[in-house]
Amino acid sequence: MTTIKDVAKKAGVSVATVSRFLNNSGYVSTEAAQAVTVAVEELKYELNPIARSLNTKKSNLIGLILPDITNPFFPELARAVEDVALTYGYTVVLCNSDEDPEKEKNYIETLKKKYIAGFIVTSNQLDAPHYANANVPIVALDRTINEKIPTVSSNNKEGAIMGTNALLERGCKHILFLRGPEKLNPANDRYEGFMEAIQRSNVRYQVVTCPFHFADSQKIVECILQENPLIDGIFASSDVSAAGALKAAGTAGKHVPDELQIVGFDGVAMGAMLSPGLTTVAQDVYKMGAVATRVLIKRIENKKIEQNFYEVPVKLVIRGTTRSVVE
Amino acid sequence: MTTIKDVAKKAGVSVATVSRFLNNSGYVSTEAAQAVTVAVEELKYELNPIARSLNTKKSNLIGLILPDITNPFFPELARAVEDVALTYGYTVVLCNSDEDPEKEKNYIETLKKKYIAGFIVTSNQLDAPHYANANVPIVALDRTINEKIPTVSSNNKEGAIMGTNALLERGCKHILFLRGPEKLNPANDRYEGFMEAIQRSNVRYQVVTCPFHFADSQKIVECILQENPLIDGIFASSDVSAAGALKAAGTAGKHVPDELQIVGFDGVAMGAMLSPGLTTVAQDVYKMGAVATRVLIKRIENKKIEQNFYEVPVKLVIRGTTRSVVE
Repeated sequence: MTTIKDVAKKAGVSVATVSRFLNNSGYVSTEAAQAVTVAVEELKYELNPIARSLNTKKSNLIGLILPDITNPFFPELARAVEDVALTYGYTVVLCNSDEDPEKEKNYIETLKKKYIAGFIVTSNQLDAPHYANANVPIVALDRTINEKIPTVSSNNKEGAIMGTNALLERGCKHILFLRGPEKLNPANDRYEGFMEAIQRSNVRYQVVTCPFHFADSQKIVECILQENPLIDGIFASSDVSAAGALKAAGTAGKHVPDELQIVGFDGVAMGAMLSPGLTTVAQDVYKMGAVATRVLIKRIENKKIEQNFYEVPVKLVIRGTTRSVVE
Repeated sequence: MTTIKDVAKKAGVSVATVSRFLNNSGYVSTEAAQAVTVAVEELKYELNPIARSLNTKKSNLIGLILPDITNPFFPELARAVEDVALTYGYTVVLCNSDEDPEKEKNYIETLKKKYIAGFIVTSNQLDAPHYANANVPIVALDRTINEKIPTVSSNNKEGAIMGTNALLERGCKHILFLRGPEKLNPANDRYEGFMEAIQRSNVRYQVVTCPFHFADSQKIVECILQENPLIDGIFASSDVSAAGALKAAGTAGKHVPDELQIVGFDGVAMGAMLSPGLTTVAQDVYKMGAVATRVLIKRIENKKIEQNFYEVPVKLVIRGTTRSVVE
């Protein structure tokens, strides 16, 4: 194998000069730079990437910290991050944190010892000291954060207004809103959007907090449909909770969409597989992941980023859980 | 920062001795080993993990090569691999290959330069030279391979016999089998199991090849139900194609399970969300990932592995797409 010594010998310069040139870490004369370039090419010298890590204190690893890859929102995100990272020569380390601050801290400390180049993080802990003091580029995804960390998010509030209006335009008179966990920023933005749209109307509504979890949502909605049989529209803050609501409608004997209309939020592939197919406010998850990765790589490479907050548009996808618009 | 030189000075030995001791790479006298241990502890010296990689030519990175993380089978697998890896101090690099041999080869070559410790691979290309000559521990998942590579797989044939018998015991007289892609070993094992069970019965059957894809499966099954209205049972080789069949039954106006019973294969979370819930042959995906990771780490650490083929049992999960057993 060709070593840096062979390159130095061939170029007629010192090993230190070759190292400075290859690592871009100090003055090298034009003549020496040319000689080294020629020697590297002739000898087909490849700088060992781990040796390069040691010298530049950077690897080309990106850490992706997310709550749980088995939540149907995250695989598409992970796919986008890996696709974009790959085109820039980076590889992605997968970290499931379960939103546990200790696990997150441990990932950051362990991976920093491997000179991780940066992190993409979906977490509620971004105010925690292990992020503030991480001293490594970070981009936040799907969570609003302290203003020091660039953030990529869907237009959640706007999306919730769209989803609410979809039910209003289709004649719903008693709407149930399944609010997501109160500690999650995107869930709160969706709640705000719902409140803004519903309060502009004269329609009755009810808000209940419901986890982004199928079986829990099914139980909650079954209870509520029994208590309040007038409900004719449900807007769920996630597709998984909308799937629970649809199942509950089935057990309650409510026909969807004739007696009860349902709108979800997320746009995951599962929504199309339900019967009827789920009308939903679809996030462009792939784009979110792709934008976050591009922003992170710019930060890693010390390039200027234009803004600190990127909002990716959502769109309404109409399927079978809603009727035609009332003229 | 404490360096290896400080440790050597404190211990009164040479840097080479400290290095041999820390990297376990040659003879060190008992006295020297004790002195180095004391010096390391007193100086709180931490061997830089990247420097250690260079010395031992091994990192603690595991590469996970899978076709596509957005296929609902893989996130749970990835989760298991990462969970187990973490408990042994390994981190997981995610690689989506799209079953493209060039991409797989590129991952292996790139990651070997980072001294990746080993790979867990779900691929049909395992006979390809880039695996045969990889010269790094590999464990194969969900694919049968050349006998040199340890493999973890579900008991696919047995599972298909279970699924077929479930339809037979519930009175089906005309069964459609949705066979998976012919180049996939698990799909072929499921086909063999179906054929074995169906040929023991007097029941009519039809086999059609169908990708593991929702919309394609829906179209294929819609056509077949029109051509052959006598079909009263469908056994799909995956949950995603079973979801397509269930949707097709809806558009064909066939009541499930009264007129048509459906059984899937996989056991992904989406199956429970369908209406009616999908009866399926469930793989223990998490266990498959966990076993593969443990086997790989044993190979990385040069420990003996007991066997070269690990078969993880499947089980039948009865939900609403099948009726009661006919007595």
